[in-house]
Amino acid sequence: MPDLQPASERLSRQLDFVAEADRLKGVLRHTRLTHPARRENSAEHSWHIALMALVLGEHAPPGTDISKVIAMLVLHDLVEVDAGDLSVHAGAAAQARQHAAELAAAERIFALLPSDQAGQMRGLWDEFEERTTPEARFARALDRLQPMLADVMAGGAAWRDQGVRADQVLTKVELIEDGSATLGSFARYLIERAVRDGILAPAATER
Amino acid sequence: MPDLQPASERLSRQLDFVAEADRLKGVLRHTRLTHPARRENSAEHSWHIALMALVLGEHAPPGTDISKVIAMLVLHDLVEVDAGDLSVHAGAAAQARQHAAELAAAERIFALLPSDQAGQMRGLWDEFEERTTPEARFARALDRLQPMLADVMAGGAAWRDQGVRADQVLTKVELIEDGSATLGSFARYLIERAVRDGILAPAATER
Repeated sequence: MPDLQPASERLSRQLDFVAEADRLKGVLRHTRLTHPARRENSAEHSWHIALMALVLGEHAPPGTDISKVIAMLVLHDLVEVDAGDLSVHAGAAAQARQHAAELAAAERIFALLPSDQAGQMRGLWDEFEERTTPEARFARALDRLQPMLADVMAGGAAWRDQGVRADQVLTKVELIEDGSATLGSFARYLIERAVRDGILAPAATER
Repeated sequence: MPDLQPASERLSRQLDFVAEADRLKGVLRHTRLTHPARRENSAEHSWHIALMALVLGEHAPPGTDISKVIAMLVLHDLVEVDAGDLSVHAGAAAQARQHAAELAAAERIFALLPSDQAGQMRGLWDEFEERTTPEARFARALDRLQPMLADVMAGGAAWRDQGVRADQVLTKVELIEDGSATLGSFARYLIERAVRDGILAPAATER
């Protein structure tokens, strides 16, 4: 947002960052909504998992700082303004390219902020990516669980779109279990039920 | 989301609430996005103001609990799942009908949660509505400022859509000032500039 004088230089930079974030509303994810019938965007996803953290926070390990989890989740996909969204089921080479693109995006986007805040926000994003703290682990668990719930609600359409089978979805459950034992075992149940209900193809070896 | 056994009754209720919230992605607001060119939805708006609270929190009065502000903002529009969005410039009768519809929606939607959590979340929503604490005042200020920024970014299209003039927009500034002196004076400047730039019609008396 250009020309914000007479706002202070500091406020002006903060508002540039806020304006840049607006673009996340145009980044489409692979997850589908049912009403309206379209793909979800990353801004909607980010709001929904912040709400999940608020409601499901008690399933994180004791002592987890849920306010920090929410801050991470609000910021975690901002890099997609430049890098776009990649399916969680993409191959290793595509994942590596995505990671590089997201790092470059983080360099550019957080630098819009006043430097002290740029450091703080970038720190939260790095913490989310590195997944070494309980907060980051729980945040990542929610980031994996939300599309799984959405896929079930949409009757498995996104799984069919991408030709994904149960064994591929199951590999994502470890990351949920790592953030929350309760949510991990729930995710495992959700996948079993999706296969039983015929909305997710069984593992290749079970065919 | 039906049939979440063997999740605990508690988790099952929490996930019902999370699933219900999904509908907020289908509630269109009067604010317009520029890229893509369409109306914004309430989920996107909710995420964007949570991000604004994170970045602009230092402009709240000292001692304001920004984590609480963010929790309020994540929840504040959930009632629109039932009640829809009403333009901030609607008349008094429409505002009264909207208020009644939102109260009924709050009764229904928060009751999806386990009762202790229903009380907590409803308490945050009531606090936001009553606007008596610094947290609620700052949250409400951001809720007013975000569409104003979006309207400027979209070149005034939403103002023109609704035939809104500067004097009507200026009446909304008091609420921003009440939450943050800095953001209030910035909003006042933003409106003056929009009139000068010809993207907002001047006050009726100035014509």
